[in-house]
Amino acid sequence: MDEHRQDHQALIRQVQQEAWDDISELLDRMHVQDIADALGDFPSTAVIRALESSPRERWAAILAYLEPPAQHALLLEMDPDDTQLVLAGLLPDDLTALLESLDQPAMEQLLQLLPQLQVQRALKQLGYPEQSAGRLMNTRFVTIRAHWSAAEALDHVRRRGETEDTINTLYVTDDRRRLLGTVGLKRLVLNPQDTLVEQLIGGQLIAVQAGADREEAARLIQRYDITALPVVDSEGRLLGVVTVDDVLDVVEEENTEDFHKLGAVGAMTYSLREARPSLLYRKRVGWLVLLVFMNLFGGAGIAYFEDTITATIALVFFLPLIVDSGGNAGAQSATLMVRALATGDVQLRHWFALWSKELGVATALGVTMAVAVWSIGLWRGGMEVAWVVSLSMVLVVVVGSMIGMLLPFILTRVKLDPATASAPLITSIADISGILIYFTVATVMLTGGSTH
Amino acid sequence: MDEHRQDHQALIRQVQQEAWDDISELLDRMHVQDIADALGDFPSTAVIRALESSPRERWAAILAYLEPPAQHALLLEMDPDDTQLVLAGLLPDDLTALLESLDQPAMEQLLQLLPQLQVQRALKQLGYPEQSAGRLMNTRFVTIRAHWSAAEALDHVRRRGETEDTINTLYVTDDRRRLLGTVGLKRLVLNPQDTLVEQLIGGQLIAVQAGADREEAARLIQRYDITALPVVDSEGRLLGVVTVDDVLDVVEEENTEDFHKLGAVGAMTYSLREARPSLLYRKRVGWLVLLVFMNLFGGAGIAYFEDTITATIALVFFLPLIVDSGGNAGAQSATLMVRALATGDVQLRHWFALWSKELGVATALGVTMAVAVWSIGLWRGGMEVAWVVSLSMVLVVVVGSMIGMLLPFILTRVKLDPATASAPLITSIADISGILIYFTVATVMLTGGSTH
Repeated sequence: MDEHRQDHQALIRQVQQEAWDDISELLDRMHVQDIADALGDFPSTAVIRALESSPRERWAAILAYLEPPAQHALLLEMDPDDTQLVLAGLLPDDLTALLESLDQPAMEQLLQLLPQLQVQRALKQLGYPEQSAGRLMNTRFVTIRAHWSAAEALDHVRRRGETEDTINTLYVTDDRRRLLGTVGLKRLVLNPQDTLVEQLIGGQLIAVQAGADREEAARLIQRYDITALPVVDSEGRLLGVVTVDDVLDVVEEENTEDFHKLGAVGAMTYSLREARPSLLYRKRVGWLVLLVFMNLFGGAGIAYFEDTITATIALVFFLPLIVDSGGNAGAQSATLMVRALATGDVQLRHWFALWSKELGVATALGVTMAVAVWSIGLWRGGMEVAWVVSLSMVLVVVVGSMIGMLLPFILTRVKLDPATASAPLITSIADISGILIYFTVATVMLTGGSTH
Repeated sequence: MDEHRQDHQALIRQVQQEAWDDISELLDRMHVQDIADALGDFPSTAVIRALESSPRERWAAILAYLEPPAQHALLLEMDPDDTQLVLAGLLPDDLTALLESLDQPAMEQLLQLLPQLQVQRALKQLGYPEQSAGRLMNTRFVTIRAHWSAAEALDHVRRRGETEDTINTLYVTDDRRRLLGTVGLKRLVLNPQDTLVEQLIGGQLIAVQAGADREEAARLIQRYDITALPVVDSEGRLLGVVTVDDVLDVVEEENTEDFHKLGAVGAMTYSLREARPSLLYRKRVGWLVLLVFMNLFGGAGIAYFEDTITATIALVFFLPLIVDSGGNAGAQSATLMVRALATGDVQLRHWFALWSKELGVATALGVTMAVAVWSIGLWRGGMEVAWVVSLSMVLVVVVGSMIGMLLPFILTRVKLDPATASAPLITSIADISGILIYFTVATVMLTGGSTH
């Protein structure tokens, strides 16, 4: 793909040097995505100047790949005629994505430039809940009738298909627009031309409601290996189509959300590079302050065992090591569990089998780590401290792992997102238990049980 | 999708009750993925008995959706004639996936049942590196010639297409099998039938080398919104096609890998539910033991400041709170950065802009948290301790955030995976710095700087 990178560099150079003359050949050769990438960081006047020599029909495709702020600036800077042309050329789902990223006045400004029909369509689509299949769908598709022959259907596709983008799948509807099934363009072409469409309808009908979460649409497309998923209303009437390329973006966004939760950052689908500091502050401060107050319990635990600590100050040396080990083991378990629940690998009913497995694995891990620290305990504090440290290590790792493993299940059970069991949350809970376990073991083994 | 769930339950019930008579209607109605799901947990004899009444052609499609162990058991239990039929019906990429999951003897056993041509193809495909585009590709596709007319090409598709699965895109090759471009079936159908194929070739040719990492193939498909990506050898000859449904699986697997790294678990694409305890132990023990030894430095830090601690034992109360806050802030920064680097949102050259932004955000977070703990410091240890705790908090949060933000960049710079900057690793590093900062501040402010 080196030629792509070369073209990318060449385009940036030519725009920087304002060398507009020989730019059109370069633009012709490049993919619209690559053009959008190269031009994305330039001011909109330069972008318009660069695109001047390329056909207006490509502008919409290039615009669709730009980030919303750049899209908006560009549409405002353009000649109003061009803006109308570009808006008209946008796919319905790209137009919806653009409109939903704008604030009210900017949106209204753009809506004035659209023909009435497109405005109605766009507003209707914006009426579906955020992150729903209805927001994501493309509303341009070709429908055919069950009683037509393959030849009639192909004829219809020839007439209607030129302006539509997705005709690899055709949608069979009845006279009330209810979806009866789908027929691949391939089947229309390959079968005898007098075959009836109804005989060509393939397998099970997979569809999704417009109000369903877009994650549901993504799940169906992934599960059934289909490239286009029909979207219907509550009466089964066809409203639009969600395609697999939209789903790829959804999958990445949902994964990003899960990542952020795992790191105790609030859900944020916005680009990190473009996020304002105030947004980043808000997304992070909540968990941090909450965890501070949780850690007060850890502090209280330490205060409670002050006598034990003063009596054997060597114990404090092992505090970070023991306490962190519990947190780390817990973070590992929670990560494995949260991810397995998210991908559907593990379900609620599996908890007991996994719990017993986790108990075995955690015990083995705890014993390994106890062996690793025993000699250090001997060196720093003598035989008694060595045993305190080793025994605490086993208990802390097992308890930490259990917390990390069970909390995502409990959260799922009470209908919360299991990803709320973030690494920092698990670490904090495991830390508190670690402090209590460690000093309890120490108090019992070293002083015979009397603290106060 | 409730009818799907009902059918799923009905099938499980019928197999449990060995009610084979009316099972065929149910199987006809269900999607192969749903059938595989419902049958996945039954022993292979029961699965074979259940499938008996369904046409043999569907067996391959159902088998493709089962997990490798179940696939293998089923193939061995079947009548050898059926096994041959099913193997012959598998798509080349599904066959490759099955073979690469088997150990040597099992693989050879199955290869004996395959016709010579299929064996050669399968072995050739297994010759590409693991996780390469070559392993992932489907080797069945339809090629056409540039000098044909659309009518001739469609004729050819009609003759060849019936046995091939992906004919939505046709591949134009020269007489040395080199890929010249692609033509959508749609364009062949929609254009005048005397148009030459070479005039229909669309836009830029996007292709990937067979030896390239499958992540590269996934990236290209995502980037250019295509549903099928041609795979070529070093001389540009067409070898196969990677389709978007394979890529969806790759994206999920790669995300799982990144998740596990973030939680300090070794890369493990295997199902958590099916993973043996010994595997889980091995994937987790490395980081845990390594981090124990890192935390010895934290212990050493505490030991160094033993005098300060003994002098003001109240300080220990705040230890978990301050130290964990640095770790948590660091885990947040690292999560944001690792994910942004993985999705391509952020690149190496952005580090400085992000660093300055992070410095501002971290300072604001640190000050907020210092305010939150000031009064607790006052209550537990008086005015002096309150200031020690607050000042330490600001410093610890800023330093933790900087570590979390910079480490992924440094790892990327030295060509390591940024995801190695896991939450537990960042937490441990931040803990050590937290201990040093806290007790240094305390020593300077409370005792005037003399520790030993």
